[in-house]
Amino acid sequence: MHLRRDHAQQTQNPNVVQSSYEWNGEFFPGIPKIKYEGPNSKNPLAYKWYNADEEILGKKMKDWLKFSVAFWHTFRGTGADPFGAPTKAWPWEDGTNSVAMAKTRMRAHFEFITKLGVERWCFHDSIAPDGKTLAESNANLDEIIEIAAELQKGTKILPLWGTAQLFMHPRYMHGAATNSELGAYVYAAAQVKKAMEVLNLDTGCNSIEEKILSFWGGREGYQTLLNTDMKRELDHLARFLQAAVDWKKKIRFNAHLVPLCLKITQLVPVFSRVEGLVEKRLKLETARINGLLGNIDANTGDPHIGWDTDQLLTDIGEATLIMLTEGLAPGGFNFDAKLRRESTDVTDMFIAHISGMDILARGLQNAAKLIEDGTLDELIRKRYKSFDSEIGSQIEA
Amino acid sequence: MHLRRDHAQQTQNPNVVQSSYEWNGEFFPGIPKIKYEGPNSKNPLAYKWYNADEEILGKKMKDWLKFSVAFWHTFRGTGADPFGAPTKAWPWEDGTNSVAMAKTRMRAHFEFITKLGVERWCFHDSIAPDGKTLAESNANLDEIIEIAAELQKGTKILPLWGTAQLFMHPRYMHGAATNSELGAYVYAAAQVKKAMEVLNLDTGCNSIEEKILSFWGGREGYQTLLNTDMKRELDHLARFLQAAVDWKKKIRFNAHLVPLCLKITQLVPVFSRVEGLVEKRLKLETARINGLLGNIDANTGDPHIGWDTDQLLTDIGEATLIMLTEGLAPGGFNFDAKLRRESTDVTDMFIAHISGMDILARGLQNAAKLIEDGTLDELIRKRYKSFDSEIGSQIEA
Amino acid sequence: MHLRRDHAQQTQNPNVVQSSYEWNGEFFPGIPKIKYEGPNSKNPLAYKWYNADEEILGKKMKDWLKFSVAFWHTFRGTGADPFGAPTKAWPWEDGTNSVAMAKTRMRAHFEFITKLGVERWCFHDSIAPDGKTLAESNANLDEIIEIAAELQKGTKILPLWGTAQLFMHPRYMHGAATNSELGAYVYAAAQVKKAMEVLNLDTGCNSIEEKILSFWGGREGYQTLLNTDMKRELDHLARFLQAAVDWKKKIRFNAHLVPLCLKITQLVPVFSRVEGLVEKRLKLETARINGLLGNIDANTGDPHIGWDTDQLLTDIGEATLIMLTEGLAPGGFNFDAKLRRESTDVTDMFIAHISGMDILARGLQNAAKLIEDGTLDELIRKRYKSFDSEIGSQIEA
Amino acid sequence: MHLRRDHAQQTQNPNVVQSSYEWNGEFFPGIPKIKYEGPNSKNPLAYKWYNADEEILGKKMKDWLKFSVAFWHTFRGTGADPFGAPTKAWPWEDGTNSVAMAKTRMRAHFEFITKLGVERWCFHDSIAPDGKTLAESNANLDEIIEIAAELQKGTKILPLWGTAQLFMHPRYMHGAATNSELGAYVYAAAQVKKAMEVLNLDTGCNSIEEKILSFWGGREGYQTLLNTDMKRELDHLARFLQAAVDWKKKIRFNAHLVPLCLKITQLVPVFSRVEGLVEKRLKLETARINGLLGNIDANTGDPHIGWDTDQLLTDIGEATLIMLTEGLAPGGFNFDAKLRRESTDVTDMFIAHISGMDILARGLQNAAKLIEDGTLDELIRKRYKSFDSEIGSQIEA
Repeated sequence: MHLRRDHAQQTQNPNVVQSSYEWNGEFFPGIPKIKYEGPNSKNPLAYKWYNADEEILGKKMKDWLKFSVAFWHTFRGTGADPFGAPTKAWPWEDGTNSVAMAKTRMRAHFEFITKLGVERWCFHDSIAPDGKTLAESNANLDEIIEIAAELQKGTKILPLWGTAQLFMHPRYMHGAATNSELGAYVYAAAQVKKAMEVLNLDTGCNSIEEKILSFWGGREGYQTLLNTDMKRELDHLARFLQAAVDWKKKIRFNAHLVPLCLKITQLVPVFSRVEGLVEKRLKLETARINGLLGNIDANTGDPHIGWDTDQLLTDIGEATLIMLTEGLAPGGFNFDAKLRRESTDVTDMFIAHISGMDILARGLQNAAKLIEDGTLDELIRKRYKSFDSEIGSQIEA
Repeated sequence: MHLRRDHAQQTQNPNVVQSSYEWNGEFFPGIPKIKYEGPNSKNPLAYKWYNADEEILGKKMKDWLKFSVAFWHTFRGTGADPFGAPTKAWPWEDGTNSVAMAKTRMRAHFEFITKLGVERWCFHDSIAPDGKTLAESNANLDEIIEIAAELQKGTKILPLWGTAQLFMHPRYMHGAATNSELGAYVYAAAQVKKAMEVLNLDTGCNSIEEKILSFWGGREGYQTLLNTDMKRELDHLARFLQAAVDWKKKIRFNAHLVPLCLKITQLVPVFSRVEGLVEKRLKLETARINGLLGNIDANTGDPHIGWDTDQLLTDIGEATLIMLTEGLAPGGFNFDAKLRRESTDVTDMFIAHISGMDILARGLQNAAKLIEDGTLDELIRKRYKSFDSEIGSQIEA
Repeated sequence: MHLRRDHAQQTQNPNVVQSSYEWNGEFFPGIPKIKYEGPNSKNPLAYKWYNADEEILGKKMKDWLKFSVAFWHTFRGTGADPFGAPTKAWPWEDGTNSVAMAKTRMRAHFEFITKLGVERWCFHDSIAPDGKTLAESNANLDEIIEIAAELQKGTKILPLWGTAQLFMHPRYMHGAATNSELGAYVYAAAQVKKAMEVLNLDTGCNSIEEKILSFWGGREGYQTLLNTDMKRELDHLARFLQAAVDWKKKIRFNAHLVPLCLKITQLVPVFSRVEGLVEKRLKLETARINGLLGNIDANTGDPHIGWDTDQLLTDIGEATLIMLTEGLAPGGFNFDAKLRRESTDVTDMFIAHISGMDILARGLQNAAKLIEDGTLDELIRKRYKSFDSEIGSQIEA
Repeated sequence: MHLRRDHAQQTQNPNVVQSSYEWNGEFFPGIPKIKYEGPNSKNPLAYKWYNADEEILGKKMKDWLKFSVAFWHTFRGTGADPFGAPTKAWPWEDGTNSVAMAKTRMRAHFEFITKLGVERWCFHDSIAPDGKTLAESNANLDEIIEIAAELQKGTKILPLWGTAQLFMHPRYMHGAATNSELGAYVYAAAQVKKAMEVLNLDTGCNSIEEKILSFWGGREGYQTLLNTDMKRELDHLARFLQAAVDWKKKIRFNAHLVPLCLKITQLVPVFSRVEGLVEKRLKLETARINGLLGNIDANTGDPHIGWDTDQLLTDIGEATLIMLTEGLAPGGFNFDAKLRRESTDVTDMFIAHISGMDILARGLQNAAKLIEDGTLDELIRKRYKSFDSEIGSQIEA
């Protein structure tokens, strides 16, 4: 008995058998390029609020919002939940996790983004199937990246960010950079190294300002302190991050390294020992203040459910607040969101993203109105005015 | 494209390839029958507190506790979670969901229960693989039931309860008895009918006092009222339950029908229209008072996590409270509990159940001590003594 | 040492000393009667959406919404929280809990409702201060009711519902109708009896269709089963409710008795033994279906906070959903909601209610649009259409 | 109208009138000094597990546990909750918040601690009533501190830590060091300054190794970003903390400054600008690793309730885990815990603390057993052994 490496199969839908699917050049044949038709439109395949080139506060909507589609959720989400089997069976899926299937899927994905009129995508390294060895996995990834680069070139769609996926595979059940097993730790390091190299490729089209490599470590931490040597794990994590920083310099990887999903209480003592990273972290924390926000996952959760349900945002009030307090900054909005389990039509993929984009567009419009109106600024100015007094000014000085 | 019926494959571990597994008559070769060795034992494969034949308050421990093993969780749990692939690869699994595999698994399961020294098991109809049609599914189930009956006969192990599993398959994503699709509704009814017939079989060994068919409807209810005709759904549910009651009479199914997992607020108006069931529900509610408790799922959750994590109980205080207030009644304790995702050794299956049984045995001993001591009874008696006055008695009368 | 009966003092603000307040006939001198000015108004003291006499789906807005003001929260809320002292100091409060103060407060309250243009109010019996004996308490209540009746007559403002407050006083720390002390139990019964008699008074103005007496039992239940005789408590509760039903008949109290805040799992076995009440409960449960909804507390909570924070609704989407699925029925909306702790200006009382009313008015308009549009109805009709087939119809029949 | 300064009155029980209480030199006349009687004792006023001078792992129990009693909760808790009036009426309380009452209360408190056999207490500056001015408040505090110092001298009981209470008074409803009002900000600074001076007093008895001033800022943060200038608030906070550090140096206050209850995400950018404090924070974070833990509040919450319920610990498993992973370090255990609302007898004060101390004593004994046994250490050593390999060692180096 041995563990197969193609763990990603578990995310494929076993309910699907497509003996006879033939690709005739278009994955979404009935669906046109999505256009803006305004608030009165009843066409579910049109934007009611998102008007890409409309100017708001001196900048185009699309440049405020910088949308991207998350390959993983939108094309690899299956509809499974803790008590339910997968429900989705996209017509182009053949029930395998082969390299050929991954290529087909990538083409469908770029057609989808193009039809949405979005200009960015996000990925983790599981865009390609795991191989039996690291070398084979990397070779698989190279094949898919080649297709992706070609598609990027044709469509001018660029990555907003990429990451190494370090939580799904059983090898990471005890964490990645804090795993108690050397083998898993080293494998994780190799994945991050490869992801950097892939993101560093010249994709042959106009470069984006900032590339970002996210550290995505949802399994770091511990189940119980009873079997955990926290000091040793934190040292390993620090070493892991330092190695990434070193490699970044070596390959002249012109990008930001951004930690995601790690509990800050654990990270602080680590980062303080890692050159440059603590500063980066603080930059994130003070982003809003300093006008330098990273990317935002444009998803939301359910306060009554205890895990990350990655729902598309539907609340205009929340969207307004986001655009006011976080959104008007040079980051992008990645739809890191799953369709509902019951959404099983191909058209639902479009409807969900259109709705998500319209909501944020509306949030942007509301935020702009509030800003132009000046009421909030005035209210804040008045609220702190006692600190404009002589004593207040002395304290502040 | 069509949906394959063997959805249950999704729960199998794709990481497993056992090209060369050969069953030599024993699934757990290094593991002896688990014995009681007392609190000072350091043997992980021995009971420290559960002493099956020890008398407590005039009854054997095993008769107070009536343990059962949940086939589904213990033998079909994969270790998958919302963000992680399966981790478990039991040596007898061949990576398929075939009838042959189901038979092998059933043999492993009875060896496990026998070695634990437990006398009951629990199942849902997914002990057999789905077929392409209902007829094929039922034929598969018949084959597995035949093996199970034979194993029951040899081991004297009996079912504590059984149920039709109406939530995992994609067909049930909108519910079973409240599904908006007639096809799913009818399929669910057919599954319940078959489950009744299976539970009604004469298994050729000494019968247990009470058989129970549980209605297990974790997907009933609604996602949003915006697309729900609640009145119609409740009528369908009432009809569904009434049909089950009718069928029970027709086949002289000598068992209790017990609803599980349905929100009572929805059920009340339904049950009031269904002969006998409202009475049954009230019986459950007033079980403790009237000394007629149904079965208890001997699992626990994590207050910080929003879904049913089905953990084995480890808290002695909680176990004591359960035995005091719910446990000393004629139900059984089904270990409807999953091993942790990181528990991947076959031996962990034993350690987990031994610990779960020891905890409840300790709870039982504590409860007996408290009862014999009489302090709590006296405390309760004193607390309400103002109602023993003349006016109090008049009010109570 | 003895416990003083005027426990309600604890809700008064000890920070307030008004040595010199003089009432000159108007409590809110700078505030005019609130008018509808439409969505473009920037006047915080005007309705932007609530237009009382505007017709929606053939009925006036005010008749769809039937707003009421909760005396307790709006006039007696202090801003205290588990870790914070009271913050509110309304100008008419003199720091006492006297009968004279209660009268003044009632006048302020009717001026407030009149200026809002609302036609109903809600109360519990603690509108009057506790006396040293039940008789004194009842006499105090009679004095306040007299003023209230006079004010009702002058303003045509009527009660939406009333209740006996059975949870704040220390005597109710172990519950009211399930209290282990006979004295508390009997006191609670006397409060309910008095509340019925008060609600049954002819207030001298045009009667409303339905009077409601709510049972408000937030402290029923138990802290731990270890010291609880649940059977005895449930019997006491059943007796309590039966006595209320009996008294209602005796005094020809033409009103509904509605249970609030009791856990249904406890209540079901009780109510089944109480004539008429189980039917009432089911009526509530099936209210939406049968078009007979009771009253709605127009407040909302915070999903991140574990107690009932009674916030005013601010979410248009939620308001739309309420109006669609619960609101278009013959109940009323009681603003059972507290101003934020930091809202300490008298004007905030108005702004908060205006906003709450505008939000529900907007929800009503949205709901009407959705209903007139017909899309949702059509969607629901289609969703269940498989049950319109021959087999489906047979099942439904 | 003006706000009275003696806000603390709100925590006093208005139900209490003690016209005739006379102190005869003993507050707890029937209660002897609590002694250790061992696990078989049935005496509620005896320790069953806490045996102060018993040696565990080479140190006395009392030195491992360093218990302290929280003046605020134990002597000033009223039993009020968001929906309930105060329930407690200790016999020595006269219903006022006077300086005389505060002195009496302090005597009762030292008798209580002495009878428990505990050697430390904790306080915030609200041990004295607020005055009409800061000067009057400070004068009140000086009077009480004088009594406390005298009582400390006689009993050898010392403070474990002290703090300025910056959240209860209405002036702090918008925060203290992040308050938008200069007046509240300055008042808070003055309170911290005074608290330092008080803690710095020579109490005339043998000094403890470490004095601690906690920053207790439960109201810092914001309700909504819409009205918040976060940058300005964070600057104010940084200035506030820096001033405290400066003052500490100036008065040679030989103590630690420890932040409590502030969200770390907000603090990090602040602390990095404050000399010494960021280091302190990291010290806390890595406390367990470096064997330098601060103090622990020996209370627990209810996972089903959303606010800090400050319950006494009753779970032996949790106590064991605390002692294993956090407890065996040079901090102390402050019973920052409230009696249940229904615990209204003076004797309950003792029973609650005895139980809390016994539970932690049992946790200590269990932890010691696990440490002496060595199983856990061995398990951890084995778990990480792959990092002891050559490659592992290189990575760690």
